Amino acid sequence: MFGHVKDLQFEAKPDGPDAAFARRLQEILGGKWGEMTVANQYLYQGWNCRLPGKYKDLLLDVGTEEMGHVEMIATMITRLLENAPLSLQEAADDNPMVAAIYGGSNPAHFIHGGGGALPTDSNGVPWNAAFITASGNLMADFQLNVTAEAQGRLQVARLFNMTDDPGVKQMLRFLLARDTMHQNMWMAAIEQLKQDGLEEMPVPDAFTDSTEFTQAPEPVLAPGDPRLYGTTPDLADDLLDDDAT
Amino acid sequence: MFGHVKDLQFEAKPDGPDAAFARRLQEILGGKWGEMTVANQYLYQGWNCRLPGKYKDLLLDVGTEEMGHVEMIATMITRLLENAPLSLQEAADDNPMVAAIYGGSNPAHFIHGGGGALPTDSNGVPWNAAFITASGNLMADFQLNVTAEAQGRLQVARLFNMTDDPGVKQMLRFLLARDTMHQNMWMAAIEQLKQDGLEEMPVPDAFTDSTEFTQAPEPVLAPGDPRLYGTTPDLADDLLDDDAT
Amino acid sequence: MFGHVKDLQFEAKPDGPDAAFARRLQEILGGKWGEMTVANQYLYQGWNCRLPGKYKDLLLDVGTEEMGHVEMIATMITRLLENAPLSLQEAADDNPMVAAIYGGSNPAHFIHGGGGALPTDSNGVPWNAAFITASGNLMADFQLNVTAEAQGRLQVARLFNMTDDPGVKQMLRFLLARDTMHQNMWMAAIEQLKQDGLEEMPVPDAFTDSTEFTQAPEPVLAPGDPRLYGTTPDLADDLLDDDAT
Amino acid sequence: MFGHVKDLQFEAKPDGPDAAFARRLQEILGGKWGEMTVANQYLYQGWNCRLPGKYKDLLLDVGTEEMGHVEMIATMITRLLENAPLSLQEAADDNPMVAAIYGGSNPAHFIHGGGGALPTDSNGVPWNAAFITASGNLMADFQLNVTAEAQGRLQVARLFNMTDDPGVKQMLRFLLARDTMHQNMWMAAIEQLKQDGLEEMPVPDAFTDSTEFTQAPEPVLAPGDPRLYGTTPDLADDLLDDDAT
Amino acid sequence: MFGHVKDLQFEAKPDGPDAAFARRLQEILGGKWGEMTVANQYLYQGWNCRLPGKYKDLLLDVGTEEMGHVEMIATMITRLLENAPLSLQEAADDNPMVAAIYGGSNPAHFIHGGGGALPTDSNGVPWNAAFITASGNLMADFQLNVTAEAQGRLQVARLFNMTDDPGVKQMLRFLLARDTMHQNMWMAAIEQLKQDGLEEMPVPDAFTDSTEFTQAPEPVLAPGDPRLYGTTPDLADDLLDDDAT
Amino acid sequence: MFGHVKDLQFEAKPDGPDAAFARRLQEILGGKWGEMTVANQYLYQGWNCRLPGKYKDLLLDVGTEEMGHVEMIATMITRLLENAPLSLQEAADDNPMVAAIYGGSNPAHFIHGGGGALPTDSNGVPWNAAFITASGNLMADFQLNVTAEAQGRLQVARLFNMTDDPGVKQMLRFLLARDTMHQNMWMAAIEQLKQDGLEEMPVPDAFTDSTEFTQAPEPVLAPGDPRLYGTTPDLADDLLDDDAT
Repeated sequence: MFGHVKDLQFEAKPDGPDAAFARRLQEILGGKWGEMTVANQYLYQGWNCRLPGKYKDLLLDVGTEEMGHVEMIATMITRLLENAPLSLQEAADDNPMVAAIYGGSNPAHFIHGGGGALPTDSNGVPWNAAFITASGNLMADFQLNVTAEAQGRLQVARLFNMTDDPGVKQMLRFLLARDTMHQNMWMAAIEQLKQDGLEEMPVPDAFTDSTEFTQAPEPVLAPGDPRLYGTTPDLADDLLDDDAT
Repeated sequence: MFGHVKDLQFEAKPDGPDAAFARRLQEILGGKWGEMTVANQYLYQGWNCRLPGKYKDLLLDVGTEEMGHVEMIATMITRLLENAPLSLQEAADDNPMVAAIYGGSNPAHFIHGGGGALPTDSNGVPWNAAFITASGNLMADFQLNVTAEAQGRLQVARLFNMTDDPGVKQMLRFLLARDTMHQNMWMAAIEQLKQDGLEEMPVPDAFTDSTEFTQAPEPVLAPGDPRLYGTTPDLADDLLDDDAT
Repeated sequence: MFGHVKDLQFEAKPDGPDAAFARRLQEILGGKWGEMTVANQYLYQGWNCRLPGKYKDLLLDVGTEEMGHVEMIATMITRLLENAPLSLQEAADDNPMVAAIYGGSNPAHFIHGGGGALPTDSNGVPWNAAFITASGNLMADFQLNVTAEAQGRLQVARLFNMTDDPGVKQMLRFLLARDTMHQNMWMAAIEQLKQDGLEEMPVPDAFTDSTEFTQAPEPVLAPGDPRLYGTTPDLADDLLDDDAT
Repeated sequence: MFGHVKDLQFEAKPDGPDAAFARRLQEILGGKWGEMTVANQYLYQGWNCRLPGKYKDLLLDVGTEEMGHVEMIATMITRLLENAPLSLQEAADDNPMVAAIYGGSNPAHFIHGGGGALPTDSNGVPWNAAFITASGNLMADFQLNVTAEAQGRLQVARLFNMTDDPGVKQMLRFLLARDTMHQNMWMAAIEQLKQDGLEEMPVPDAFTDSTEFTQAPEPVLAPGDPRLYGTTPDLADDLLDDDAT
Repeated sequence: MFGHVKDLQFEAKPDGPDAAFARRLQEILGGKWGEMTVANQYLYQGWNCRLPGKYKDLLLDVGTEEMGHVEMIATMITRLLENAPLSLQEAADDNPMVAAIYGGSNPAHFIHGGGGALPTDSNGVPWNAAFITASGNLMADFQLNVTAEAQGRLQVARLFNMTDDPGVKQMLRFLLARDTMHQNMWMAAIEQLKQDGLEEMPVPDAFTDSTEFTQAPEPVLAPGDPRLYGTTPDLADDLLDDDAT
Repeated sequence: MFGHVKDLQFEAKPDGPDAAFARRLQEILGGKWGEMTVANQYLYQGWNCRLPGKYKDLLLDVGTEEMGHVEMIATMITRLLENAPLSLQEAADDNPMVAAIYGGSNPAHFIHGGGGALPTDSNGVPWNAAFITASGNLMADFQLNVTAEAQGRLQVARLFNMTDDPGVKQMLRFLLARDTMHQNMWMAAIEQLKQDGLEEMPVPDAFTDSTEFTQAPEPVLAPGDPRLYGTTPDLADDLLDDDAT
């Protein structure tokens, strides 16, 4: 079960609005490597974990923290969307920066979201749950978790260089520090799995490989079921002689 | 069976082109709450309706009308896409409004659609049929239909405030009036369902709830099938002692 | 911010495994009207809500509760997946029920999920965030929330009739009771919105409709930009005379 | 504008229920080459057609007919879904055919659709509008329309061999005949386009190709913007010497 | 098996960067009719082809060539993305062309791709494999291949008119010439299929149509299974009398 | 540029048909962690790599090898699909194993693919390019590549336990050995990146974290733009007093 408190884990307040950056910030909210991904991924890994104890607890705890990051970024986006130019006329009556904002923003933020955050990436493509994996094998999944934190931190660092807003930068610094912490944490968990004798690389270590393999000739398929109306040798026997040369 | 006449239900003619607004208008054509959604949703609800008579007829009639709204909006978008700046050079040689149009338009309108409407939302994400529901329970579905008309009218009203074009505004006024009419219609149909003794809220009223429930302790899962190579207690018995504390 | 405790809101323990029902139960976990939808929908509506106070708080509280339902159903599915037949040989060596389970189960539960729940619907299609809407207009969104609880309860009631397992039925009874409670809650919230003078049906009530509309003749489009290589009157003037008759 | 009459274009009544075949029949309703695709594709091509007259009219007329095919197949599926086994217990208490039906049917037909047709393919994947194209170039689009009717007829012919039900076979015969007629029709329209001097193959014939082209050496990319934290030569100059050999 | 050499089939070097055109060029890389589609479509058609010889070989050879086109376009996009304005401040401090580029570019190119090509269309929607078809019937599939080359060449020709960059135009000329060649090739292959007696239009010619069909009256559905809680005549007998008038 | 030879990297021949296992095998062809993913991911990482030399070459070489794995698995699936029961009648006239195959197979293999492999996962959901990432940062991407090989090998090992067919098992052994080799290879490449001074964990190491962060109070959002018809404090001032308590 979950509980919610109204305080944010860290302040999510820009110094000013910027609808074009709001669109960009969506990437780390609802993009493939955004906070919705890590939150849901860790929680599903936790729920599916058949080994009670420290690993299961860690997954559920960190997944729960990431839900709070979703909240922070959603709040920041909602604030960045204030006072945006809604029409071409507003964009054109003003300075070039307004034209750039108009062109660079996501219309669905206003038409669909009414000036609020959307569960999508920076192009308005909805987040989908194929982004997450919970394989039941903790080594394979912790490797993915390291990756997710690495790709995520990379994206936050890039976004840090795509704005001058001090309030936004401050929140991004917080997220960067957490991503650093979590990369280190999952790498340590991988070492722990090895020390606990639970799994080794390459995954799964319980399967022992064979070693001798040889190349195979061109595959020749059997004729198909005629009820499927495919093009098969049955229908073209005389053609085969030419092709066989 | 369906028939088609060439006249539009209402005029769909802008006073001038505006490719950036054409992109925005796509939201009510191929977005989640757009006309493709209501048209297909009402038709599927009608085809699946096992109760012959007024409800089934109403669904098929209104779904058919909505097909005509798809046609109107597609026509409007096609006209808004005329004379658009195609290249950066055109955008930059001209005034800032052209730069805003270039930035704010959807390139697929030209590359994919050749200057015609697309079956997508305002970000170019294709409409998909998961947007519609036909559950076979008319009360649940009429509630969804009220919602669809409410969300739809909200979006049209927002778009009304995002353009100065009189011709566009006139068509949006028409759509707003129809959405009002349909919100009222589905709310009346909900009342009629109750009066006809067919269904009550909460849905489904034929299922009677139990009342006494208590919380459950932390779930402990059984070990997994070793053929799936998951991380399970079987592989880590000695670890469990530590975690149990 | 969120917190997590290890206890479940209600017991999620089947009397026996049933991989085919595990597949079916996925519909209310990761399907369009499943728990992932209501959890995320209420949370996003809460985060985007610009009106502080009771409505925002309600959305965040109920969304947080729904996260606990996701947890319960995921736990139940993971248990239903135990001891499943993995190969055709196992299915064929056994009684007809095993063949039915083999045919009716989702292979990805084992290959991808390692015997754990997946964030998908009953056909293995991943949950996606286009299922949720947070429009910023509470009346439109509360109508959707009533709908979501109605469609959700309908699906749970159907699943109740698709199994004989007492443990599963007991959890479904709990979910049915919560869905009843939440349907009533959102209907009460709609009434409260009206009493608070915040919004009326039809949505949005701040927009006043026009009334006089007349039908339009067949639309004739202008020729297209020749740089788009469309088929246009420019290229076919003499053809038009024939077609005009 | 569209109108609807209650009669079906052709009878859609199976001799008996078969939920497994209902699942299969979905492929020609909501699959890539199903009736939703051709209906929507022809209508969008018609709405976007800038050449008034016979081609635009043909597209809108045939698209409208296809809407009636959607209706017929949806009706047939709804009837095939009657009396289906809902639980494993029903499947196992009965003969092997019931087990095959249970395994081979789509659970969403019952949980989501309440025993009605769904706008999806035979695996429950929702139809999406990326299946359709309306490019504005009639030659390119008529080629696609020939293809769509050919792929569609192929699928109907396969389904004809996948059931023994006389009523189902009778409806499929009707669809096969219409697909034959439409393949011929679009091939004739292609010839007509050529005769009318509107377009030639290869498309677009207004663009004249160059002829002389030579292969290019391995591409060497410039260093990236350091603000994006990519791995670039800037960061690894001494490494380049080794690699250049 | 496949091999790779470092040379490009043709030069992929723009005269200067243009992040807005890079976004547009994505349409022919990862859009519905882009190079990823034809490469994968021809390869799958080849792998599934049950007729050994010239047709299977042709499919695998052309599919392999198209992989090289994917490579060329990816390389071109990566180069067009250099020196792009990353922030609104850069966009606004500069001339209107920079504002147009900022508005017209795809933020994911930088945040997700680090200044490299993405496997998406011009709106950032990921390529998906539903774009390809390998039906097993060569006539149906070669018709689709003609279409794919026609739609593809149309899009390249449009892009040719959307840039002034000589290096880009030169590569597009190369692609246009290949698309011409491939349209002709698949049309010739269709004629060859006929001459080889393998298949005729309409597809599949092995199925002979019936001819006599008559319209059907309004379908009346049977009552539904009460366990699905649909709205059915069973629940509303007395209502039917009114509706029958 | 790419080349293709007709020989397979390894034999792909089952001892007998098994349409239900063909469906399962699709997971490692067109699923999230299947061969289409690694092939495309490595190639895109290679094309986007701005550092010429060993890393770029490695990515392109291994990506090219993986294309050959796509070919092998597609060939195997096509052979497993032979002689499958197409109708319920065939399934029911035979032994229980045929019923299990009928229920456990994917109808689209026959209706859409004509008895050939599909570019989808084991549930028929199309592969999509969001499965791949090419971030431009080699450390982040090599971590993902380790993960992809680990998840992939885990799935192949599970499939190994889901069939008794010696020919299938032999091909899976080959894939397992290659996945082992590639896991080791990407781990070595990560070490090499560190030794070459190109990147360190956590990624990106060029960004230095701040350290002091404090929690934030409940966020209070500003009123929204009235043109978006959201529910905002502007419309509900008197309500705020009650809620503040």
